[in-house]
Amino acid sequence: MPLSEDQQAEITAARATAQPTLRAVSPGMEKHLYIAQRVLDHGFVRVVDYMGDDAAIVQAARVSYGAGTKKARDDSGLIRYLMRHWHSTPFEMCEIKLHVKLPVFVARQWIRHRTANVNEYSARYSILDREFYIPAPDSLAAQSTVNNQGRGDVLQGEEAERVLRILKDDSMRAYDHYEDMLSQDGQQGLARELARMNLPANIYTQWYWKTDLHNLFHFLRLRADAHAQYEIRVYAEAIAAMVKDWVPAAYGAFEDYRMGGVQLSAKGVEVIRRRLAGEAVTQESSGMSKGEWREFVEVFG
Amino acid sequence: MPLSEDQQAEITAARATAQPTLRAVSPGMEKHLYIAQRVLDHGFVRVVDYMGDDAAIVQAARVSYGAGTKKARDDSGLIRYLMRHWHSTPFEMCEIKLHVKLPVFVARQWIRHRTANVNEYSARYSILDREFYIPAPDSLAAQSTVNNQGRGDVLQGEEAERVLRILKDDSMRAYDHYEDMLSQDGQQGLARELARMNLPANIYTQWYWKTDLHNLFHFLRLRADAHAQYEIRVYAEAIAAMVKDWVPAAYGAFEDYRMGGVQLSAKGVEVIRRRLAGEAVTQESSGMSKGEWREFVEVFG
Amino acid sequence: MPLSEDQQAEITAARATAQPTLRAVSPGMEKHLYIAQRVLDHGFVRVVDYMGDDAAIVQAARVSYGAGTKKARDDSGLIRYLMRHWHSTPFEMCEIKLHVKLPVFVARQWIRHRTANVNEYSARYSILDREFYIPAPDSLAAQSTVNNQGRGDVLQGEEAERVLRILKDDSMRAYDHYEDMLSQDGQQGLARELARMNLPANIYTQWYWKTDLHNLFHFLRLRADAHAQYEIRVYAEAIAAMVKDWVPAAYGAFEDYRMGGVQLSAKGVEVIRRRLAGEAVTQESSGMSKGEWREFVEVFG
Amino acid sequence: MPLSEDQQAEITAARATAQPTLRAVSPGMEKHLYIAQRVLDHGFVRVVDYMGDDAAIVQAARVSYGAGTKKARDDSGLIRYLMRHWHSTPFEMCEIKLHVKLPVFVARQWIRHRTANVNEYSARYSILDREFYIPAPDSLAAQSTVNNQGRGDVLQGEEAERVLRILKDDSMRAYDHYEDMLSQDGQQGLARELARMNLPANIYTQWYWKTDLHNLFHFLRLRADAHAQYEIRVYAEAIAAMVKDWVPAAYGAFEDYRMGGVQLSAKGVEVIRRRLAGEAVTQESSGMSKGEWREFVEVFG
Repeated sequence: MPLSEDQQAEITAARATAQPTLRAVSPGMEKHLYIAQRVLDHGFVRVVDYMGDDAAIVQAARVSYGAGTKKARDDSGLIRYLMRHWHSTPFEMCEIKLHVKLPVFVARQWIRHRTANVNEYSARYSILDREFYIPAPDSLAAQSTVNNQGRGDVLQGEEAERVLRILKDDSMRAYDHYEDMLSQDGQQGLARELARMNLPANIYTQWYWKTDLHNLFHFLRLRADAHAQYEIRVYAEAIAAMVKDWVPAAYGAFEDYRMGGVQLSAKGVEVIRRRLAGEAVTQESSGMSKGEWREFVEVFG
Repeated sequence: MPLSEDQQAEITAARATAQPTLRAVSPGMEKHLYIAQRVLDHGFVRVVDYMGDDAAIVQAARVSYGAGTKKARDDSGLIRYLMRHWHSTPFEMCEIKLHVKLPVFVARQWIRHRTANVNEYSARYSILDREFYIPAPDSLAAQSTVNNQGRGDVLQGEEAERVLRILKDDSMRAYDHYEDMLSQDGQQGLARELARMNLPANIYTQWYWKTDLHNLFHFLRLRADAHAQYEIRVYAEAIAAMVKDWVPAAYGAFEDYRMGGVQLSAKGVEVIRRRLAGEAVTQESSGMSKGEWREFVEVFG
Repeated sequence: MPLSEDQQAEITAARATAQPTLRAVSPGMEKHLYIAQRVLDHGFVRVVDYMGDDAAIVQAARVSYGAGTKKARDDSGLIRYLMRHWHSTPFEMCEIKLHVKLPVFVARQWIRHRTANVNEYSARYSILDREFYIPAPDSLAAQSTVNNQGRGDVLQGEEAERVLRILKDDSMRAYDHYEDMLSQDGQQGLARELARMNLPANIYTQWYWKTDLHNLFHFLRLRADAHAQYEIRVYAEAIAAMVKDWVPAAYGAFEDYRMGGVQLSAKGVEVIRRRLAGEAVTQESSGMSKGEWREFVEVFG
Repeated sequence: MPLSEDQQAEITAARATAQPTLRAVSPGMEKHLYIAQRVLDHGFVRVVDYMGDDAAIVQAARVSYGAGTKKARDDSGLIRYLMRHWHSTPFEMCEIKLHVKLPVFVARQWIRHRTANVNEYSARYSILDREFYIPAPDSLAAQSTVNNQGRGDVLQGEEAERVLRILKDDSMRAYDHYEDMLSQDGQQGLARELARMNLPANIYTQWYWKTDLHNLFHFLRLRADAHAQYEIRVYAEAIAAMVKDWVPAAYGAFEDYRMGGVQLSAKGVEVIRRRLAGEAVTQESSGMSKGEWREFVEVFG
């Protein structure tokens, strides 16, 4: 269970008490506030606060460009223009604060996004709960045979069973020993900051994570991507669904220009031009390496 | 006049329409929302959005330290503890967005605070207004004779008059010429991105500026300080007054530990100890340089 | 003259004294060290220090990916792979420190790149020199009639003369008055921090600016671009020429994937596919706005 | 053994080949370059590159303050002045790149310092080595009874033995199972990105970590402090010893003003003044909380 009864009661209470504000309000996001979206077996992500909406992006852009912009484009067109031309600062004017419960090995990838504010549960100060990520059977993937950092087929039969048994047993044993070392029953008890070192990377931690919309889009582009590890991708997808309700115009532009977009190299542009002019281009005549060519052909055939 | 009638009407409209929200609301800040606080002769600062309140700081800290903290301290005591021990991340969980109108030479100092999001009015894209900062007579200070970056006495009589006349005349002439160069009346008109180079540093610009509370406190500590230039200090003071209403407990801790606090060097600690033990310490016996000693004596006599 | 005799002598002295080091050395960059590259009429840019070379990028990447990468690709292929897949951290392992002399209005654009370290000449503390940017006749561009932030034709004849006369006269007069206000001859003299406000945005300032290669590439992509203002572009181009000698493999990848590359939206990818399949696509049937379509056609015909 | 024979041979080779450079060279740092300083049982820290020296700090400051500063102070006095007055930007002009091998639970604390560049060994891409941190007997501390995030006495006898046995056995078993799951001998083999989740937080990882001197000092102030966890403090102390040889003047100022310094609150200043005036101040009459008073008395008696 990702949430205790106490936590669930707190959420219900928080959602019961609307207050008037003069600030920008996003109805789509109010709907999500505080509610924990389940992710993986014990994890969740929930919005605890946000600042701004689509109109706030436009408002900031118009400070920069003056009143003239008001007539030239409607809001959604301006947002698309800003995204297309990499104008990042207006998107930085929206902010989001999330409460996330996630396995430590996912947290270790996530924290690499430096332009964010973080308060993580301290295992130096407090005792972690007995909660570990154990993959669902259909997520138990083999090592990819073509990509060092990718997955192949799903494990089957005895091999799958053995892996699950190892992960479960080792988690439970590690936690039992963690408690044994901490125990002050008939002994002094090891310091928490030391005992935690016995816990494996599939234990759950939690944090508050706050970032602006520009940096969140960057996070989503990398982590909701098909090449991202499944266990972080499901968090990114859950967040993306909330962002879509929060700032629908910005999210639409993001989907078109970033998620669904493709970066062409100078060589790639040249190859497209030649092919549009009727030429048959091969890897050899493209000037691309084999890897580049393979990625290029995946997109354009 | 810092605000046009249109802008004033927009503010009145924005303040007329409260909406329900489930987010944390700071009643002290709602009171300030959108209202332009006049600063200098044509400038202002106004809050356009905020995220969080004192309770949000505490909430984030308790994610880190676990439920145990709940009993140990009340909220205000915990906030003081966090500030005293330089725990910066919980303060980063609050965010503020300001709309500021300010002279360019003030903007040039302000922008050095890098951990902030900024959308500035673009003089490449749009035409600046004819608004210049002309110091009030009692701000017309002479160069300090003891401090290269400080002010001395207020200028008087003819000298003051001459300075004011220069500043006013040069501003108006520069702006007249800016308009002449831009004009498309009987000529092509110089590009805006070039014409702006004729404008002096006392012209007003404006921007949206967004930062978190930790970085805002850092800004206030440096810019609301007695050694800051008067023209940025008045902005910092106007912001400080709003922050006090927004997060009163955090602001109280900031006042005690940062604004009113003093950083002692190892040598300073040693001198205090010796003096408390009854010894009469001089600059020579303190191990401090003359400069350090002078600053030390200013605080402790 | 951008450099005083004293400065020139310092540079000659600095270049005369090579010392042994165990660090990575880039012969291409050693050649540039300290030498001021002239930019605009009184500006310059010069490298004062650097860290790393192409091999340092590879070395950092191989810490991440382990020994296995050693066989898979040569260094230059690995660098291209990293650039293509937006692996930014290995490029952050190189660092550069520049000394730049530039007009204030250029500095105001430049400083918006926040991930950099800056020490700027302080006009609060010291007195600025009488040096102003006056555009060369062929840079005196009219306002674009199609793009709010662009340039049109070069001004000619009387209009050009009038503009140049205004810029020169106003600069000299502003500086004369700056000196008059500062003067302590028979008067107190206005504080430097105030007197500077009379100086126009074409006065030169200078700074030390330090950043890593990843962020420098981002700067170059935006500022060496055809849409950047000419007066910052010439600095970016001068820096780009140095970077090419410093890290030739990384610069080659940057040129191919960033400077010469194109970001296609999901719609753009779809249009290319349809056209490659023989379909004639129009703006209407593309799903793009007029602006997007125009930019698309500029690249692919 | 923290270093393999291959790695040791690479270090010896790197140290054998000095090259001439025109850049600033720190003889004190050249002495350390590449050499691995052992930390904990299998860890190390070594400098792989650096930029700048004490003179580079002074040089950057003098760009800001103009030639006037040249006469006013010698270099070391200027560096002390900058440190005392929180002028951080000149210290940002020096940069250091470290190669660190460290337990994962130490890496998780370290990474919270966001203003740094990092390339970490990827357990998604490669297979981790069988190396785990097992505390030395005199580091096996009990949980503090007064401080939630502190240590008490060293564990003795059977309790100590049991803890060591658990840590060793669980590490070995977790690694055996990691290998079992990865094995492609008669089975597909679990993906590396999944198998790693079984590994406990005392396994060693490694990274390249690059930061500027200002941010490094901030890191050292927090992590070389007596309140930091022992396992990160030993890394901070090893780095501090190198920094002392690299920039002796800056390090001296850092020791005096930061490491040995004390931040007094406004209330603390007031209490010192009253005591210097002969008054006997108690916690009650100080206005401080019990915690503040205890910390105050620890310093000043």
